[in-house]
Amino acid sequence: MLGQMMQQPLLISSLIQHAERHHGDQLVVSRRVEGDIHRYTYRDLAKRSRQMAKALAKLGVQHGSRVGTIAWNGYRHLELYYAVSGSGAVLHTLNPRLHPDQVVWIADHAEDHVLCFDKTFLPLVEAVATRLATVKHFVLMADRSHMPADSQIPGLLCYEDLMDSEDDAFEWPRFDENEASSLCYTSGTTGNPKGVLYSHRSTVLHTYASALPDALNISGRDVVLPVVPMFHVNAWGLPYSACMVGAKLVLPGPGLDGASLYELFESEGVTLSAGVPTVWQGLLGHVQAHKLRFATMKRTIIGGSACPPSMMSTFEDDYGVQVIHAWGMTELSPIGTVGILKGKHEGLPTAERRAIQAKQGRGLFGIDMKIVGEDGRELPWDGKSSGELMVRGPWVVQQYLKGDKSPLVNGWFPTGDVAIIDADGFMQITDRSKDVIKSGGEWIGSIDLENIAMAHPAVAMAACIAAKHPKWDERPLLVVVKKPGAEVTAAELLAFYEGKIAKWWTPDDVVFVDAIPLGATGKMLKNRLRELFENHLLNKA
Amino acid sequence: MLGQMMQQPLLISSLIQHAERHHGDQLVVSRRVEGDIHRYTYRDLAKRSRQMAKALAKLGVQHGSRVGTIAWNGYRHLELYYAVSGSGAVLHTLNPRLHPDQVVWIADHAEDHVLCFDKTFLPLVEAVATRLATVKHFVLMADRSHMPADSQIPGLLCYEDLMDSEDDAFEWPRFDENEASSLCYTSGTTGNPKGVLYSHRSTVLHTYASALPDALNISGRDVVLPVVPMFHVNAWGLPYSACMVGAKLVLPGPGLDGASLYELFESEGVTLSAGVPTVWQGLLGHVQAHKLRFATMKRTIIGGSACPPSMMSTFEDDYGVQVIHAWGMTELSPIGTVGILKGKHEGLPTAERRAIQAKQGRGLFGIDMKIVGEDGRELPWDGKSSGELMVRGPWVVQQYLKGDKSPLVNGWFPTGDVAIIDADGFMQITDRSKDVIKSGGEWIGSIDLENIAMAHPAVAMAACIAAKHPKWDERPLLVVVKKPGAEVTAAELLAFYEGKIAKWWTPDDVVFVDAIPLGATGKMLKNRLRELFENHLLNKA
Repeated sequence: MLGQMMQQPLLISSLIQHAERHHGDQLVVSRRVEGDIHRYTYRDLAKRSRQMAKALAKLGVQHGSRVGTIAWNGYRHLELYYAVSGSGAVLHTLNPRLHPDQVVWIADHAEDHVLCFDKTFLPLVEAVATRLATVKHFVLMADRSHMPADSQIPGLLCYEDLMDSEDDAFEWPRFDENEASSLCYTSGTTGNPKGVLYSHRSTVLHTYASALPDALNISGRDVVLPVVPMFHVNAWGLPYSACMVGAKLVLPGPGLDGASLYELFESEGVTLSAGVPTVWQGLLGHVQAHKLRFATMKRTIIGGSACPPSMMSTFEDDYGVQVIHAWGMTELSPIGTVGILKGKHEGLPTAERRAIQAKQGRGLFGIDMKIVGEDGRELPWDGKSSGELMVRGPWVVQQYLKGDKSPLVNGWFPTGDVAIIDADGFMQITDRSKDVIKSGGEWIGSIDLENIAMAHPAVAMAACIAAKHPKWDERPLLVVVKKPGAEVTAAELLAFYEGKIAKWWTPDDVVFVDAIPLGATGKMLKNRLRELFENHLLNKA
Repeated sequence: MLGQMMQQPLLISSLIQHAERHHGDQLVVSRRVEGDIHRYTYRDLAKRSRQMAKALAKLGVQHGSRVGTIAWNGYRHLELYYAVSGSGAVLHTLNPRLHPDQVVWIADHAEDHVLCFDKTFLPLVEAVATRLATVKHFVLMADRSHMPADSQIPGLLCYEDLMDSEDDAFEWPRFDENEASSLCYTSGTTGNPKGVLYSHRSTVLHTYASALPDALNISGRDVVLPVVPMFHVNAWGLPYSACMVGAKLVLPGPGLDGASLYELFESEGVTLSAGVPTVWQGLLGHVQAHKLRFATMKRTIIGGSACPPSMMSTFEDDYGVQVIHAWGMTELSPIGTVGILKGKHEGLPTAERRAIQAKQGRGLFGIDMKIVGEDGRELPWDGKSSGELMVRGPWVVQQYLKGDKSPLVNGWFPTGDVAIIDADGFMQITDRSKDVIKSGGEWIGSIDLENIAMAHPAVAMAACIAAKHPKWDERPLLVVVKKPGAEVTAAELLAFYEGKIAKWWTPDDVVFVDAIPLGATGKMLKNRLRELFENHLLNKA
């Protein structure tokens, strides 16, 4: 017996229509590649998105065509979010930090028909343009005055010329909510990147869930600045959730240094931001060095990798900014858990509260999760048992684009993260399953060890890796980058672990390096470190 | 090109599974018909819901079968919410305030297979039992010790006996999210009631949207007391949203008087409540008479009918309780708009802020709305143009149960409300279209006139109706119930309008009555008043 309610598909175009109709005068403020600050309203955004949808259609973009972007967080990129997906094509955001060979591989694999890019990335696109097998049109996201005098890219198009050639008389088409809306590739530290093809349904459901009070808690009174790039899993959905609720949106463009961000935070009255820990290090460094305060910022969402506890306490104690830990993956659209305390945690002493906030958080409604042992059996939520984290839900990947086999195990997606879940449902990642250190049959999580090292005043960055050991198979080895001018010995660092962790978890040795290699999304490439140092303890023995 | 995300149906059973898994120790507190306070956890609720699903199956309840309830807000009713819908049957909540003939008509029309009811309603069910054509089993929602010694109902079953006969080894079935989940009938002040058949999809989407920060803003830190009955459009979805976010749920049972409610508010630490204005009058009366304060209550959602401005200011100014105006209908699951201010309204003077809060609010994402003139053409959102409110969206009715024709007009549901929408999307109901007063070709909204009268200290209740007029066709006539012991003349009341409204809107006369008839959901039956007084001005002239 079917219900008798209206059959309305969940479409991304509904988000921009809602924003235009209900929050037409709300602002979108962007720091442009051109250097200036650009301001307009959701009404303008909606109008120009419709114009761009018409322009793209004239370039041969059809229902299901892929349109690639290589761009910062800015209003033109936002217009493409709605113009492309809203018209039934697929928005493919490429990460400019990838190696040019990977950019070519991904654009070919996705079969991008059009590639739109910011002027910053003109050299990158010029370097790869002739190698891109499927791209028919290259669009520089600039006005005529910022077009290069001559370019190696044949027939390079000007975004604002395309815009100006169209009016906004365009009706967003209505289609099946399961149609593809957008495409992101995993960063793929090993092997080729894999494409995750979101649907309108998965995106809209993720938007509802992520905006809830116990998730990102976004309202129409918020001023949201996503530092997390729009080329990195849709900036954690903020371009969608801001439209859903009518929040003011502030887009930082290429200005991701502490000074540029701080200026925007203050001038635009930002209340909520989101990004990876490395960005916040830059911002905090700037604020501390210049003895500044945040006038309006209330909350920041930290994800991508675990927020070091020291950063959390600095934000909260020194600046009154609530840190919200979130965990997600490209395969999850991306948000899976958010670290919002429960009512029962109110009134806990700070240290206990912090210990809960340091976890990755509890599942959004829509995400089922479990942890399983090596035998695949589900482990209890007891705050102790550690196993591979598995998830499922309507915004979790079913199958990679052109993937020859499903990544799922009995209907669950194996995240590759090793986690503990406590009785309140708070999940804590202890490691990537490939990074876990297997010492004498027991697992040692590398993240805890790294967090402790990071709390040492002389440490700028720390990675803990599995090094081969003659007796225990593997033992933890700490790889450390010292802060400029700071001095610390291996013995001092190892002594720093005392009382903070089980004795047998203490790393066996410390290696000091000038830099730790980072991947395109800012994560430490620990497999590279392992290649360098996996025999360190054997050689030493 | 289809997206490649998991296909997981949106099911009501997911809500109780989420609550059990992520908020297992959160409390559900109920004032029972038996008189005592009952406390258990979401874990208990989930377990007993599974047991009851098994018990209902043994009574022949199948996928799509209707299970009727006549019950207060309590844990057993909540168990049926999940047991019935979760197992694929259809929960049909009946309003016990209806006339017994209507109860029979509705249960027959719905073809209820089982009828579960609280002991309060034993006399009602005994009176109608033999007339119910389809009900095979009657279940008294009590334990064995509270069963009547003998009953006229043949084979009357005991809820707790059914529960005890089952274990909880039951897997919630998975099925199409468009399957029917629940059924509510409109109160139907004219004509037969009409059944609205919700789906799992419409219910889960409504739950997401209604919990958002700019809607009911429900978090796991809230303690929610729905005064609005669970037999009245699913208590505005709170039994679902509380499970979605893990809020503590406090269910007041039959204790809807001010003293009983106040006791629960304080003893359970209620932060958020919801109900119709008449209930709040009782609560405020109690609190004022005994010079009490609210220790924990922060917000109350008022809907069902417009909240009189005087009540809003009392709540906010005297008790620090934020009043959130909401508008909805049985046909909308029920919530359509919520009166949450925007960022731009912060810092407005109190009177201006109140004027915005007095409106019914802005649309949830998922609800499209428009106002149309008598010719069906869309009217502007200018805060002045008044027309019939039309809505559409995934939790809006498409067709009434067994309805022979669709109520929709070009895909939009005509609400029967007359409304104004301002440039910020705030909608204000000025009247029911059948209650609007057509004076000389112009429309006069009755609700404004009633609110002004209600602000007079001598007025307990006021209705404004269209009375026939020899020159203007219709003119407003005010029907007033005075407060006990209070005195006021018609001339004094009419003078009270001066300066508050356009002069030609002032009612032509006042009629004093002992009581205004109310319908089953507490709304004034203005059609009855019209029958009595529509010739009042003609007779007077």
